[in-house]
Amino acid sequence: MQAFDLGGWSTQRLAHVEEALSQWVVADAPAGLGESMRYAVLDGGKRLRPLLVLAASEAVDGNAQAALRAACAVELIHAYSLVHDDMPCMDNDVLRRGKPTVHVKFGEAAALLAGDALQALAFELLVPEGDAIPAATQATLCRLLARAAGSAGMAGGQAIDLASVGRALTEDELRGMHRLKTGALLQGSVMMGAACGQAGAVASAALERYGAAIGLAFQVVDDILDVTADSATLGKTAGKDAAQDKPTYVSLLGLAPSRAHAQALYAQAMDALDASGLSDTRALRALADMVVNRNN
Amino acid sequence: MQAFDLGGWSTQRLAHVEEALSQWVVADAPAGLGESMRYAVLDGGKRLRPLLVLAASEAVDGNAQAALRAACAVELIHAYSLVHDDMPCMDNDVLRRGKPTVHVKFGEAAALLAGDALQALAFELLVPEGDAIPAATQATLCRLLARAAGSAGMAGGQAIDLASVGRALTEDELRGMHRLKTGALLQGSVMMGAACGQAGAVASAALERYGAAIGLAFQVVDDILDVTADSATLGKTAGKDAAQDKPTYVSLLGLAPSRAHAQALYAQAMDALDASGLSDTRALRALADMVVNRNN
Repeated sequence: MQAFDLGGWSTQRLAHVEEALSQWVVADAPAGLGESMRYAVLDGGKRLRPLLVLAASEAVDGNAQAALRAACAVELIHAYSLVHDDMPCMDNDVLRRGKPTVHVKFGEAAALLAGDALQALAFELLVPEGDAIPAATQATLCRLLARAAGSAGMAGGQAIDLASVGRALTEDELRGMHRLKTGALLQGSVMMGAACGQAGAVASAALERYGAAIGLAFQVVDDILDVTADSATLGKTAGKDAAQDKPTYVSLLGLAPSRAHAQALYAQAMDALDASGLSDTRALRALADMVVNRNN
Repeated sequence: MQAFDLGGWSTQRLAHVEEALSQWVVADAPAGLGESMRYAVLDGGKRLRPLLVLAASEAVDGNAQAALRAACAVELIHAYSLVHDDMPCMDNDVLRRGKPTVHVKFGEAAALLAGDALQALAFELLVPEGDAIPAATQATLCRLLARAAGSAGMAGGQAIDLASVGRALTEDELRGMHRLKTGALLQGSVMMGAACGQAGAVASAALERYGAAIGLAFQVVDDILDVTADSATLGKTAGKDAAQDKPTYVSLLGLAPSRAHAQALYAQAMDALDASGLSDTRALRALADMVVNRNN
């Protein structure tokens, strides 16, 4: 079998995602709000979450319009969370992807509003008028996104993160934090992709396990890279977790066991896909590989 | 015809709303997040938006479960907007309804997260599993709420507000700001209530006009009360708009013309209901009366 060309696959998909984001995050929102929203979203990031949505949707032969909207919606949620995370009352970051953060560029009040409006827009994208996307699919996508973003998902994980700086966490507590903070939206991306099609119970459960495994693997690898990569490769300040006394997998388990843990999670993701009964999971496999073996 | 007992009607409805909010805004969200969310939502406010949802839904014989969820969802959006508005980078308010604001009580980062999680929860409430609420209704409710809350609604209005302090606005600009900042969610409440039933095109358009009229009337009266009421009656600092050099209807039109404008908008709301073809619009009429003739 020919090796799967993830680069080519991604490039094609991302062209659609970037075009759609640029169309849907309109510049003409009032009083500069559109400008700050676009600054937060466009021209940046690996777009891992949209790619997961699209790969999962393709694996279940999903509705392409629904998948593109879901892909953009998860990215808007991710983008809003970064805007709010970077604010002075949270992480107080002044640079992201080499550019001034939104609050540095537009002011704190504008950053707060841009994040708020991006979250609303994420849900709006999922419920277009017309019948191109069945209402049941629209409602399911909203349900998955709301759960992944809210207090039992990303926002809850951030609350744990806030409360845990400088505290010693057990591995269970650390896992619980990351399962919500980054894992919920990554897993939610996979499940939203699955919801664009008619995945049966076995395939759905398998994709849910795949999403959980790569969601956690993503964070383990993040912690490893914070220690092993330099800032230039990383595109952000390396060694920041240790400097801020944040609990990480590396500080808790050590470097080699963290690497082994990431590989074990990758194996779990592959096992889940093997058990899914789906005929073409090459993009999902390649994305898992990228998550675990990335260097930035 | 017997006079409509708005007090009795509201008391009954609000008992359900308060119970539902207390059940759905769960205390056990991680790391204190549930506590700050509940503090922001429970035990406070006139609940005008939920009452508008329920009154509109009853007028069109709507699905009661959908209406209760929609009523709570709009209140969560309203509550999150107050939490974020009160933050130091926005209005920097330390008291709301006589209690410390969320960021004063829990810290800025917690307030930011509580607002974010409340917005996600608002959408989550609208898309429950099961078939008690048709998927098409769920999707429509999400669409209406997202539009009312986002950059073409509330968040957009706040952006205009931010940009307008200390500037002279024309009446058109002032109306444009309020139509988004407070009008969109009030009108959205009415339309969400209407979407819980099978309102025909005539009734829907009439309710949309009713919502627009009372949405704007609400703000005109707010501006009047800021000048005429004392802080004790108002439950917040009177005269604040003038002190902050914020453009208001009173500063632009004068007091008596502002009062006449509010009455004209009330008449528009009544005309819309007359033209709606709906058989029982007493609650909607009484709520419009309350909006225009309130003293706090």
